[in-house]
Amino acid sequence: MEIRLPELNRADYERAQKRLDNLTKPRGSLGYLEELAKQYVYITGELFPQLPLKKRVYVFAGDHGVVEEGVSAYPPEVTKQMIYNFLAGGAGINVIARQAGAEVFVVDVGVAGEVQAEGLIKRKVCPGTRNFLKEPAMSREEAQASLEVGFELACQAAEEGVKLLLPGEMGIGNTTPSAAVICALLGEKPEDIVGRGTGIDDEALKRKREVVAQALSRYKFDDPIDVLAKVGGAEIGAIAGLFLGGASKRVPVIIDGFISLAGYTIAQALEPRIKEFVFLGHCSEEKGAALVVKKLGLRPIVDLNLRLGEGTGACLASMIVETALRILTEMATFEDAGVTKGNEFD
Amino acid sequence: MEIRLPELNRADYERAQKRLDNLTKPRGSLGYLEELAKQYVYITGELFPQLPLKKRVYVFAGDHGVVEEGVSAYPPEVTKQMIYNFLAGGAGINVIARQAGAEVFVVDVGVAGEVQAEGLIKRKVCPGTRNFLKEPAMSREEAQASLEVGFELACQAAEEGVKLLLPGEMGIGNTTPSAAVICALLGEKPEDIVGRGTGIDDEALKRKREVVAQALSRYKFDDPIDVLAKVGGAEIGAIAGLFLGGASKRVPVIIDGFISLAGYTIAQALEPRIKEFVFLGHCSEEKGAALVVKKLGLRPIVDLNLRLGEGTGACLASMIVETALRILTEMATFEDAGVTKGNEFD
Repeated sequence: MEIRLPELNRADYERAQKRLDNLTKPRGSLGYLEELAKQYVYITGELFPQLPLKKRVYVFAGDHGVVEEGVSAYPPEVTKQMIYNFLAGGAGINVIARQAGAEVFVVDVGVAGEVQAEGLIKRKVCPGTRNFLKEPAMSREEAQASLEVGFELACQAAEEGVKLLLPGEMGIGNTTPSAAVICALLGEKPEDIVGRGTGIDDEALKRKREVVAQALSRYKFDDPIDVLAKVGGAEIGAIAGLFLGGASKRVPVIIDGFISLAGYTIAQALEPRIKEFVFLGHCSEEKGAALVVKKLGLRPIVDLNLRLGEGTGACLASMIVETALRILTEMATFEDAGVTKGNEFD
Repeated sequence: MEIRLPELNRADYERAQKRLDNLTKPRGSLGYLEELAKQYVYITGELFPQLPLKKRVYVFAGDHGVVEEGVSAYPPEVTKQMIYNFLAGGAGINVIARQAGAEVFVVDVGVAGEVQAEGLIKRKVCPGTRNFLKEPAMSREEAQASLEVGFELACQAAEEGVKLLLPGEMGIGNTTPSAAVICALLGEKPEDIVGRGTGIDDEALKRKREVVAQALSRYKFDDPIDVLAKVGGAEIGAIAGLFLGGASKRVPVIIDGFISLAGYTIAQALEPRIKEFVFLGHCSEEKGAALVVKKLGLRPIVDLNLRLGEGTGACLASMIVETALRILTEMATFEDAGVTKGNEFD
């Protein structure tokens, strides 16, 4: 995996701006939709993307040794149970993907134990992580391998014509390593970042904060991959890889919720230019998300207090990105429609 | 037109809550999507609405005598030109409606002069309003008739199986009467409510504020219909009627932007219970919108700095309402999917 992002061309952005300004509407009146359209053209170089847009969700599944510390409201077997639910089409992400017209692929990148299920992409890099309170969650090789899973799947998707990538995840306990990764890389405090995840009570929340704080004081980190290895998780690594792989092929990726932000934080630490290639789907309701979003300088497309994960917020936002592209490609120009231009101030 | 809104049953809301709590996700984790689903079930009484949802936009077109005061960046002939654009499918609302799977109907409720165009619904109540700086914009009869146009079309749509109504409008100059209506009914000041509309410069904005302020000091208003008559417009009245007609048939209506807020303000003044029957699609970028939204206690579904009107924000938001209903109807329950329930705190 060689991280080399293409140089983007400002002229593509300006071509989109020019077209938008000739459409039958007051200039700039479609607000952030116009920004999304311009950014998409800037990333991809395509002024007239083919619609409907080929959109793909990858749900990366992994387990977490740290759940034995009592940091989740759900038992770890739910990771596997949910994999079957995803493959049967019954989970939140499946439903939203049907509405959005997106494909859903499920990837075992780090589930504990064997999962046999038709349609599951098997790219396991570890059988669940180890409890990072006691020992590093993954080896450096495992962490590197998790990044490569996401990177390679993004490249494969690009070859298959996917034009928008949507990272999702499933992993009981995974808000805990996500919080640890964010704190380690952005220098935030656990009390500002650690939240209730699927819905833990006050006592478990206190414990979860302590676990993250103790882990952060226990380890020294050499680089972003070392952070991913010691306190991260396989699905977090795969998501980081998906951002980098998508960007390397000029396929935009929409950041989802809290776990997705952790993956993005790793990607950004490895290659700061990643920011040019992504959108933020929404701002998760999980405690630390708003602070991270602000610090990273990202604007959420929607803000609906979601905290389900799975890629649901990114997938929901993909409908709005696609709408922006439909505006760009299908609206009539003033000339086409014989509409008189206004004498506008701004 | 008799305004009589049905009594809603709290038990419907609770049935939706119960179903949502049994779906394979942490309780409440789909945030505002869950609120939208519950409210929809509460309004309609349907726990399993049929999808895809039959959604319809009505674009009400009207002209405004007050444009002779120089309050718009566009010349008045653009109203008619845009009607042809709507009917040809080239305007912003057409494009967004195609993305959302909504129908678009265009209604001449108050355009100046004759418009001959296939597919146009002709329900003209006046040939453009009069300049309200000099005389009342409409007679009371015209105002009442404009309300009835919206009310009757909503009832007809309900009979035709429409399950979500999306009010749109087109009318060069119509942010001026909308601001006047809002100021008159909500007691706001023109300097807080009057904005740049399609994009007027500072001088025209100053003039627009003066026009609204002078009109407000010129007239005494007997009731909401008198406000609509003296400083409103035919499309504003039709939108008000659409809210009331939809509600009377238990068909939810999504409020769009600034003109839609003016129409909603009239509907609410006539029947405060209208609030139970509506959603707010977005918060318009037009100056006064945020203040009005806050004062009315509404939450926008999206917030994308749109200021195009035509129903674009409502139509965009309709995709999110429909997604919420898909969650309600298509997600697997814990029992169906064999997923273990969590031990959640909230």
